[in-house]
Amino acid sequence: MTDPSSPPAATALDHAHMAHALRLAERGLVTTRPNPRVGCVLAHGSEVVGEGWHRLAGGPHAEVEALAAAGSRARGATAYVTLEPCGLHGRTPPCADALIAAGVARVVIASEDAAQEAGGALERLRAAGIAVECGLLREAARELNRGFFSRIERGRPWLRLKLAMSLDGRVALADGASQWITGAAAREDVQRWRARSSAVLTGSGTVQADDPRLTLRLAEAGDTPIPPLLRVVLDRALRTPAGAAVLDGSAPTLVVHAVDAVPVDARFARVECVPVATTVETGLPRLDLPAVLSLLAARGVNELQVESGPVLGGALFAAGLVDELLLYVAPVLLGDRAQPLLALPTLADMASRWRLRTIDRRAIGADLRLLLRPD
Amino acid sequence: MTDPSSPPAATALDHAHMAHALRLAERGLVTTRPNPRVGCVLAHGSEVVGEGWHRLAGGPHAEVEALAAAGSRARGATAYVTLEPCGLHGRTPPCADALIAAGVARVVIASEDAAQEAGGALERLRAAGIAVECGLLREAARELNRGFFSRIERGRPWLRLKLAMSLDGRVALADGASQWITGAAAREDVQRWRARSSAVLTGSGTVQADDPRLTLRLAEAGDTPIPPLLRVVLDRALRTPAGAAVLDGSAPTLVVHAVDAVPVDARFARVECVPVATTVETGLPRLDLPAVLSLLAARGVNELQVESGPVLGGALFAAGLVDELLLYVAPVLLGDRAQPLLALPTLADMASRWRLRTIDRRAIGADLRLLLRPD
Repeated sequence: MTDPSSPPAATALDHAHMAHALRLAERGLVTTRPNPRVGCVLAHGSEVVGEGWHRLAGGPHAEVEALAAAGSRARGATAYVTLEPCGLHGRTPPCADALIAAGVARVVIASEDAAQEAGGALERLRAAGIAVECGLLREAARELNRGFFSRIERGRPWLRLKLAMSLDGRVALADGASQWITGAAAREDVQRWRARSSAVLTGSGTVQADDPRLTLRLAEAGDTPIPPLLRVVLDRALRTPAGAAVLDGSAPTLVVHAVDAVPVDARFARVECVPVATTVETGLPRLDLPAVLSLLAARGVNELQVESGPVLGGALFAAGLVDELLLYVAPVLLGDRAQPLLALPTLADMASRWRLRTIDRRAIGADLRLLLRPD
Repeated sequence: MTDPSSPPAATALDHAHMAHALRLAERGLVTTRPNPRVGCVLAHGSEVVGEGWHRLAGGPHAEVEALAAAGSRARGATAYVTLEPCGLHGRTPPCADALIAAGVARVVIASEDAAQEAGGALERLRAAGIAVECGLLREAARELNRGFFSRIERGRPWLRLKLAMSLDGRVALADGASQWITGAAAREDVQRWRARSSAVLTGSGTVQADDPRLTLRLAEAGDTPIPPLLRVVLDRALRTPAGAAVLDGSAPTLVVHAVDAVPVDARFARVECVPVATTVETGLPRLDLPAVLSLLAARGVNELQVESGPVLGGALFAAGLVDELLLYVAPVLLGDRAQPLLALPTLADMASRWRLRTIDRRAIGADLRLLLRPD
């Protein structure tokens, strides 16, 4: 990693090329996982001589794609890369060496990559006489790969809690009926957020109440196949009923259960079962949520979308494990007998209320979509 | 009233002049009550020769202002009026006669006025050889005076229920604390909605919990004084405590109570008390809400802003008496132990949910403001 105090000498042209590289990176939004989304632009002044983006894990990195496109014109060019190039042999040879071999004169990097600390890429580039600058549009680059950075830096996925509610903050009727509060456009939009996630997680209560499939209806992004979405069910006592859609084997599925519950029966034949410790914090036994998240990070989950009921959602939120709330609000009222958005501890006073920042707000059909993050 | 089937022969120029007249009318938004907001433009082709708007009840009508501005140039002009001119002698002479006397050639009217049915204004205008057209931008004109039309046509005010809630649809903590969920900008915005209302209504529960003043902090709109806002407290059993801000005599105040509760004590010395019948629909005695609304209409209330708790708000909504919901949503969570937005009957199924239309949606500071109407 470079010294973060070194001031980048970025020009408006540098900004434009890096913004372009970020747009390229975004093309890999739903396909690169568990890898980060990365884009690369090679330019002489305003002239772009090569561009590339990372499509699929195991496929060429953005830098390699851009170098191939530029050919001999890479010599003397500036490389704009949205993420620190790799320095170690992974599934592909190190991009740092490829940039050196191609004779680029300068490398501008948006964001450092803690996963590359041992690779020595920046040192090798500098040793080869290449000017290296870090931090241009860093925030946008980190935002694009917030799941990847969360996994690498915090050892847990970026957790997005998706909720669909009425105007009065209700997610289901008193009897549990919740289909459908929001409209078709909002439900279609949820699919797009699932597609950029590595996994979608719910609790056994939701499985019993709604029997969701938790699958991805999209199969391809352009001509690139979308990697499968991992379904995760938190089912401490293995209560998921036989015949539940999540057990049908149509997608990779993980059932997380307590150590003392043993998944011996045929219900779980087509899924993977993993035991996790339990805690008894609020009087009720509960799977250790941080342990679940560590487990998912270890399996390469960058963005985790939780689509659960009020109890699990509330427990995650109260534990400070929710990174963003994706909230669909339908213009309907369900009344105070209907089920609440999140089960949360009683507040002692108004000053202790949970504050969030609104990141994005837009209309999706007749519904409203809010993206919020704890403040 | 004119025959609504007569097709208006409106041109783009007519549209532009009427839109201008509506903007003039809007200047009276917070001052004309109990009168409607009315604007008038006098034009020869594209040339405007006079314009006017109604400022205050008892003051000149929009047509009279426009005629005075035009002087002799009113002769042969087209008059664009947002509301059917008056034909009867009220506090001022009939505008229909003034238009005839000034020699206008054509009168284009946005919206008919049921209150003028007996006035015969349109007949007199036509008898004088003036071409009369109705209906241009009628919907916008009716929207601007939705309170006035509601009072005249339905015999009740236009009821706007104002609510401020957390993301999870909570209006107060379990202990009743509600100050403040939304930010200063939202609370300032509420003042603007109060200013356009004739009255603000709450229940004795809210008075006891929050001791609101329910006054208007604004005194003038431009150089026009804002008429006082009537405070209305629904207090069936006369439980409003001595010393409550609403009893301080700083604004005209109406305490509505049950017939069997007698306001003999000094608490009510500075307010007016009016008895209304009670009903026992849901097992609990409650003031007859339609009777309360009739009473307010009879007192000239056009727009009524209700700022109440979940019980009164829910009762009004469930009774179909809420015309619009003015909903402020703060980016905070209060949890499921906090108080609900509206107390409503239990829903039998999702199909029976209360549907609304979103009329307006915007950011007010860090909060979100929604204006919705039952669908």
